[in-house]
Amino acid sequence: MGRIIECIPNFSEGRDKEKVEKIVDVFRKAEGVKLLDYSSDADHNRTVVTVVGNPEQLEAAIIDMAERVYELIDMSTHEGGHPRMGALDVVPFVPIDGVTMDECVEIANRVGKTIGEKFNIPVYLYEKAATAVHRENLATVRKGQYEGFFKKIKEDNWAPDYGPCEVNVKGGCVAVAARQPLVAFNVNLGTDRVEIADAIAKTVRHLGGGLRFVKAMGVKLEDRNIAQVSMNLVNYEKTAVYRAFEMVKMEANRYGVSVIGSEVIGLVPMAALINSAEYYLQIENFSMDQILEKRISE
Amino acid sequence: MGRIIECIPNFSEGRDKEKVEKIVDVFRKAEGVKLLDYSSDADHNRTVVTVVGNPEQLEAAIIDMAERVYELIDMSTHEGGHPRMGALDVVPFVPIDGVTMDECVEIANRVGKTIGEKFNIPVYLYEKAATAVHRENLATVRKGQYEGFFKKIKEDNWAPDYGPCEVNVKGGCVAVAARQPLVAFNVNLGTDRVEIADAIAKTVRHLGGGLRFVKAMGVKLEDRNIAQVSMNLVNYEKTAVYRAFEMVKMEANRYGVSVIGSEVIGLVPMAALINSAEYYLQIENFSMDQILEKRISE
Repeated sequence: MGRIIECIPNFSEGRDKEKVEKIVDVFRKAEGVKLLDYSSDADHNRTVVTVVGNPEQLEAAIIDMAERVYELIDMSTHEGGHPRMGALDVVPFVPIDGVTMDECVEIANRVGKTIGEKFNIPVYLYEKAATAVHRENLATVRKGQYEGFFKKIKEDNWAPDYGPCEVNVKGGCVAVAARQPLVAFNVNLGTDRVEIADAIAKTVRHLGGGLRFVKAMGVKLEDRNIAQVSMNLVNYEKTAVYRAFEMVKMEANRYGVSVIGSEVIGLVPMAALINSAEYYLQIENFSMDQILEKRISE
Repeated sequence: MGRIIECIPNFSEGRDKEKVEKIVDVFRKAEGVKLLDYSSDADHNRTVVTVVGNPEQLEAAIIDMAERVYELIDMSTHEGGHPRMGALDVVPFVPIDGVTMDECVEIANRVGKTIGEKFNIPVYLYEKAATAVHRENLATVRKGQYEGFFKKIKEDNWAPDYGPCEVNVKGGCVAVAARQPLVAFNVNLGTDRVEIADAIAKTVRHLGGGLRFVKAMGVKLEDRNIAQVSMNLVNYEKTAVYRAFEMVKMEANRYGVSVIGSEVIGLVPMAALINSAEYYLQIENFSMDQILEKRISE
């Protein structure tokens, strides 16, 4: 595949289809990048884009998209159910193939610097690109949201990494990251009692003393009348999918509840599932170079 | 990936490196095809090549390779430990992406016809391309080998599908097929008793009343002093890897023997392992389009 990075920019427009298309069009027209997916949510008034490409051309396309976003979106009148801190809200870069995390950190820095200077937007680096421990977690960085940043930006700990130390009224602020691919993996329980899913989630997730790279919560699937442990695996290389799955199963046993299924939401790196196959099939000395499709695309 | 076919031609030269390179070079120089692997065995005096490409250009490259093979290899003086019926021994075409089995059957027919007419070689179609049930199995087709074909070709049931009804003394005959990808999957047992591996193999394989698309035998791994159930899964879509694995485990229980590991030999289609991950993780409604790398390479 060559050198490939994924970027999942989120911008604060999910209702005006014409504006969304104008922004997404940047990726359709860009050389060396590929638009894999985008979905707008009207309640959230937000669009999530998934795009891949070689580092250089993807970086250029993200800047072009930012320019379009700051032209079209006005945060001073924005409403929506999802937390957000700017017109361009988050820009995480994810290494996929032939690229290191360090290179993604460099790209996050270059993109952050350019957005700060060119568009006069305060930029916060998070996850692997964070410049301090308290800035690693996106939820912490974004806390207070657009409206709160006019005050937060003046606090000792919250000066931006790039750009002015003044919120851009129209464009807000932006969070730029380098991070591992995220696997959205949910486990369905043979019960309708959401409090059981909740209790399991609390033991499995990092916050509750569980697995280092698991975020989890219990949710109710109303249409199927079952409870679900909904997880984000934020580093599938270190906290494998099968490990999270088996731990949910183990905890469910405590309540005499069975695991009736699971689901993978959206895109997943091949290695995240191949790794689970290796575990269950007890495959010794497997190399990803044995995957036919990987060899073909090299 | 576009339209992709794999071909695994085997030719009867594994000692003369210069000749092997001259033949393999055809694929290095061909447009639209990619040489994934080749390995020569001196004892077998045979080389196995793995090459992929789009149907049209791969087909052309195979004919070019055949021309080189018939120039360089003389079967009338060939010796080697592996069964063989010709200078170019077998040419199986395998659908990988965006190509149907029927199209591979058509290609096998066109290639067979061309080899028959252009190089004056008797051609036998086998597996999915076979023109009669008794010709499906390669071992049955090849029985008698090069030396035996001078007589076999005159038998009622063994007239070639293409080419002359007379063995080419220098080039021999050739077997051309369309078939599913083959997965070479071995399960290691916690015992050194090869007769247990053999007994398990007999129950798991099709021949012994076991799984439809499993070929299996017991072997001894001398260096590790353990027994192994060595399998070829000839249709992983219909007989899944996990099913063969679990069946070996179940039969091993009978002898109080544990499964200590497994191995995948050579290349394996991504779907063969993803499918096992889906089974063990109980993933509902998974689509291969959710695999990031698949989406990127499309």
